[in-house]
Amino acid sequence: MSRTPYVAVVGPGEASPDELHTAEEVGAGLAAAGVVVVTGGLGGVMEAASRGARSRRGRTLGLLPGDDRDAANGWVEIAVPTGMGELRNGLVVRAADAVVALGGGYGTLSEIALALKLGRPVVGLGTWEVHGVDHVSTPEDALALIAGLLVQ
Amino acid sequence: MSRTPYVAVVGPGEASPDELHTAEEVGAGLAAAGVVVVTGGLGGVMEAASRGARSRRGRTLGLLPGDDRDAANGWVEIAVPTGMGELRNGLVVRAADAVVALGGGYGTLSEIALALKLGRPVVGLGTWEVHGVDHVSTPEDALALIAGLLVQ
Amino acid sequence: MSRTPYVAVVGPGEASPDELHTAEEVGAGLAAAGVVVVTGGLGGVMEAASRGARSRRGRTLGLLPGDDRDAANGWVEIAVPTGMGELRNGLVVRAADAVVALGGGYGTLSEIALALKLGRPVVGLGTWEVHGVDHVSTPEDALALIAGLLVQ
Amino acid sequence: MSRTPYVAVVGPGEASPDELHTAEEVGAGLAAAGVVVVTGGLGGVMEAASRGARSRRGRTLGLLPGDDRDAANGWVEIAVPTGMGELRNGLVVRAADAVVALGGGYGTLSEIALALKLGRPVVGLGTWEVHGVDHVSTPEDALALIAGLLVQ
Repeated sequence: MSRTPYVAVVGPGEASPDELHTAEEVGAGLAAAGVVVVTGGLGGVMEAASRGARSRRGRTLGLLPGDDRDAANGWVEIAVPTGMGELRNGLVVRAADAVVALGGGYGTLSEIALALKLGRPVVGLGTWEVHGVDHVSTPEDALALIAGLLVQ
Repeated sequence: MSRTPYVAVVGPGEASPDELHTAEEVGAGLAAAGVVVVTGGLGGVMEAASRGARSRRGRTLGLLPGDDRDAANGWVEIAVPTGMGELRNGLVVRAADAVVALGGGYGTLSEIALALKLGRPVVGLGTWEVHGVDHVSTPEDALALIAGLLVQ
Repeated sequence: MSRTPYVAVVGPGEASPDELHTAEEVGAGLAAAGVVVVTGGLGGVMEAASRGARSRRGRTLGLLPGDDRDAANGWVEIAVPTGMGELRNGLVVRAADAVVALGGGYGTLSEIALALKLGRPVVGLGTWEVHGVDHVSTPEDALALIAGLLVQ
Repeated sequence: MSRTPYVAVVGPGEASPDELHTAEEVGAGLAAAGVVVVTGGLGGVMEAASRGARSRRGRTLGLLPGDDRDAANGWVEIAVPTGMGELRNGLVVRAADAVVALGGGYGTLSEIALALKLGRPVVGLGTWEVHGVDHVSTPEDALALIAGLLVQ
């Protein structure tokens, strides 16, 4: 696949240390594979995934709910203040070729559902049990699954 | 509560006869209580709920995913072609004081999740098992719950 | 034309007594012709057009920029809090078969431009001079033009 | 100003050779100044501005109207398929600290109006005469004005 792949990493703004570590590993692995990492641009899982990606000099896109670009965490390279509130969850999913979902939270669930509705593959790490999500238990397994999806 | 309440009835565009019957009962009961019934404006559960509401001379609002108003089912009194695709699911939920969810489908799940994220009460009838949804088994129970919520 | 026509009346939230009078006349005339009157749901021209429509028992739809339905003026029958800020201007225009624009204001100009971009006819009453707008000087002339457009 | 500035270059998808040359110069100058160049991601002025920016190794963001990322021109580094049609014009403007508008077109006019509504400075190069736009006649003058705005 020659065009640059985009993968969204979605998860709550408040997350456990384990979830943050996992998100950072996923972000780093995606960036190392040349993927643009898309998030909601705020804290928690979004920040950890973006930080991981930047640690590998990867590109990060943050689609913010509010209209203030400065609300983006410091690891978001390109920040888009959508001013659309939770409707931006649909933009996050639409912007991505595949989604990695971590942790709980209703926003995360909405992104999983919208991704499946749009036919985007979703890889889950300790997240909602929804039919259609490929659940794995380590960042490495998530990255392997994503890699397999993106070469198709 | 003096202002007019709005309740969204969400569910798949393709539904079983039982689900359609339930949706129609819910729509009729909401309209009888003076509620504006909000749906995604298309077929299946959306159409049945709107038809039920109109059978009681209720008001119906349909927020369509496409940009063609004529895609609305015939029971939608006020149709808004949003042209936003599945992002309109968030508009449906935002427009409502409470949500009744019927049946499966990823679109329905996204609306449940967005509603809970926004703090809207969600009453479920044979739908996704998500923490925070009040599950009931009959239209009457759903209507009683909604009535209780709206007087608060 | 058998389907119900929708016409947007767009104009600033702060308007002169003359503009308000004109907007009210336009709203009344549209309602008398069976048109659903669409506005941005707030004050000024939006409120006057909605009030005019309601004076003829017409139907009024307000698409609000914020996420609070109670921000709608009292003449809006069906209020949709989009939570999208000025992006809702595009929804107002998309929801309408034709647009009547009154007065100045940048929001009004954006609605004129989006309407023309989408191929919606725009009738202007003391508004921006933009190629493609049919300018008239009385509510009666505006209503006659709209009537001609809607029977096509 | 320490944070990275974003400037939108807006203009029609079909443009004259002069307009394309001007857009490319503007894009190049913005990129040389460390600005992220935001466009609607398609052809004409959008493509020329993005190409100019990439010629200086600048960063380019394209916010597309459709839901297919591959519709972006080849100079868009980060492409976001919004699937919102012309409503994305509001996102382009919201994402930017300032706007440079080139040429005619109703889409361009809507972006000028939305930018002024949101209080974003707009520099015009052979575009619509709208009160509030700072009109200049060369890319150099546009870049000088933008530079002045961004240091404030």
